[in-house]
Amino acid sequence: MKNAVYAQSGGVTAVINASAYGAIVAALESRDIGRVFAGVNGIKGILNEELFDLTDEKRSEIERIPYTPGAVFGSCRTKLEKEEDFERLFKVFDAHSVGYFFYNGGNDSMDTAYKIHRKALEMNFPLRVAGVPKTVDNDLLLTDHCPGYGSAAKFTAISIREATRDLKSMYSDSTKVFIMESMGRHAGWLTASAALAGIDQLQGPQIILLPEVAFNQETFLRRVEEVIKADGYCSIVASEALKGSDGNYLSTAGYYDAFGNIQLGNIGQYLERLVRENLKCKVHVALPDYLQRSSRHIASLIDWQEAIEVGAFAVKEVLRGKSGFMVSIDRTCDRPYLKELKCVDLSQVANGTKPLPEDFISEDGFYVSDSFLSYARPLIQGEAPNLFLHGLPIYENMAKVKVRKRL
Amino acid sequence: MKNAVYAQSGGVTAVINASAYGAIVAALESRDIGRVFAGVNGIKGILNEELFDLTDEKRSEIERIPYTPGAVFGSCRTKLEKEEDFERLFKVFDAHSVGYFFYNGGNDSMDTAYKIHRKALEMNFPLRVAGVPKTVDNDLLLTDHCPGYGSAAKFTAISIREATRDLKSMYSDSTKVFIMESMGRHAGWLTASAALAGIDQLQGPQIILLPEVAFNQETFLRRVEEVIKADGYCSIVASEALKGSDGNYLSTAGYYDAFGNIQLGNIGQYLERLVRENLKCKVHVALPDYLQRSSRHIASLIDWQEAIEVGAFAVKEVLRGKSGFMVSIDRTCDRPYLKELKCVDLSQVANGTKPLPEDFISEDGFYVSDSFLSYARPLIQGEAPNLFLHGLPIYENMAKVKVRKRL
Repeated sequence: MKNAVYAQSGGVTAVINASAYGAIVAALESRDIGRVFAGVNGIKGILNEELFDLTDEKRSEIERIPYTPGAVFGSCRTKLEKEEDFERLFKVFDAHSVGYFFYNGGNDSMDTAYKIHRKALEMNFPLRVAGVPKTVDNDLLLTDHCPGYGSAAKFTAISIREATRDLKSMYSDSTKVFIMESMGRHAGWLTASAALAGIDQLQGPQIILLPEVAFNQETFLRRVEEVIKADGYCSIVASEALKGSDGNYLSTAGYYDAFGNIQLGNIGQYLERLVRENLKCKVHVALPDYLQRSSRHIASLIDWQEAIEVGAFAVKEVLRGKSGFMVSIDRTCDRPYLKELKCVDLSQVANGTKPLPEDFISEDGFYVSDSFLSYARPLIQGEAPNLFLHGLPIYENMAKVKVRKRL
Repeated sequence: MKNAVYAQSGGVTAVINASAYGAIVAALESRDIGRVFAGVNGIKGILNEELFDLTDEKRSEIERIPYTPGAVFGSCRTKLEKEEDFERLFKVFDAHSVGYFFYNGGNDSMDTAYKIHRKALEMNFPLRVAGVPKTVDNDLLLTDHCPGYGSAAKFTAISIREATRDLKSMYSDSTKVFIMESMGRHAGWLTASAALAGIDQLQGPQIILLPEVAFNQETFLRRVEEVIKADGYCSIVASEALKGSDGNYLSTAGYYDAFGNIQLGNIGQYLERLVRENLKCKVHVALPDYLQRSSRHIASLIDWQEAIEVGAFAVKEVLRGKSGFMVSIDRTCDRPYLKELKCVDLSQVANGTKPLPEDFISEDGFYVSDSFLSYARPLIQGEAPNLFLHGLPIYENMAKVKVRKRL
């Protein structure tokens, strides 16, 4: 009987641990899986033979995993590039009789999972590989949406709804413009979710700046002016990845990361200055940063539940003999929201990204369309339960016993 | 029978509307008060004879007031300076038979309330005035703490607890330092509250930079380095109002507001650059801004309840004949937390501020003391209830009928 490894990779979401919980509990409950391991810091720790053995972990602590933000086993941004990395990986898997591998991540991680799957076939290594999707960016291909997105969208919508009420209270003789910067390097999905705040009552931002729409200083300032004239105040959500008509990022932090990607940032400050100097009014800026993807306390119930399901589904499908797939969410109805889980080929998901479709953007480019709202609304429904003690959410406190190294 | 005016002033808190609710319902229920008005945008609207008449407002909407962030009747930063302002104010009060005035705000607002009280005595205008305290800054004199502080503290503690879990997941090969900027122009109360996240389990920031402690670049960088060496990552909460040993603000937004105060800001970016360039590691920065004071969805139950109580208590005391006071919270026991409401002279509260006491700061100046934790812990207990519909909190939607102008 083979053992299983579950591991986390890439930027976290508020519900990545719900997927961990789904996969781990399904594996622990299965009679076809031996021991259940978790990679320490994803593939990075596995290469170093660092595995937590969860088989004898206290069940009461396992039950707390889906209530915990961050990545309970640690994440990484490591990529497998060299031939010897794969050889090392299979050596580790062999030493610990690992026959099942579940990788929970976004684009890069699905690429890693795909490469491992292919290499295993090539090298005749008996391994079944499944990708468990996760990203607040919501830009994975071949799935209606990604676990993690709904919760980040819910945080974004609620935060801007609250901040807009704040702004509305203050504008008579103080701040007239509020700008909230949103994560989302490649696509505007998360920025767009701010529009959900505007459903029901006029509580949301009046302007949403998506990275899919080239930024034009003049039309932007004119729009802000119009909104202030009409409503007295202007609430704005802006993507960190705004580009000018020349295709260059509008604002960057001024340095490059380890992978040579320019570090984005400070779009809020950039716009603040633009508005303050041109329209002569007081502007406030918020940058939630990690708060936007880690706010487990206000996670979406639908998202949380689906995150558990995709984790468990990956295990079930692998045990049915499948390999080289990612679990995908297939929406079958908008109202009421219904979905089915499916398997899609990792080869078709790896490294691709799904931009915000054009018909999800309003005609003037300063907002989203009604079709986007119909799409996104089901994903923020319900409030995931929390465990509170003495006024603070409590998280898992597992023993996290590491397996004895054999190599 | 005289009418009553309730009004809101200054920056909002997550529970200022709970105080509005307390005062308004107490006034509506009283047989000694005629009609119940609310000032539109505080004193600013009152001077312009803009009053909402709440007497016939739907009770179901009144019940939603304490579930709503922002200031439901609008706030202002207007100060009463000129003699004719006071004359105008009493003219408006006289025209609408106002005999009771409740002003809900912070330092400046208590000063305004005090001036109105004094002027009324001077001019023999029959008016009873009460100050209802509110500020996330927690720096009002003669009260153990201020309504609004507990909720902002709870948001701060939970947010940094979540973000620190995020950082802890990522540090193995990505971000090693996370910096969250905190509001608090005059005192470190709110910044200090981040330490509550560290109670129970090691989940909080390792460094807290208070405005009461002069910032020293070298000792700061050394401390960050030590923390990274010990834990692998470093989570920091920094006050927006940090000063160097020369007493000057470390970082400002580079312009002045309408009152000639230098606009603070960007301390996060300032520290980010410092750490990145000196310690050569990836740093993330968050700036919650309005989110920190408006996050009604995660308000403290104790704070919410006390906010309702101080509003109602103000009405009860005024009806007993008192005037010229602010409601104060007198803590009678730490564990279990017990308190009594009292009245303190507005003259003694007006314009003063209460700094964070020295014994609430750790000896090395990079954290808080245990006495601070004992002080702050009761204030974040419990979760204030929310009304959710379709995944979003719902707020009041009052008719807000304005009184007919008579002047």
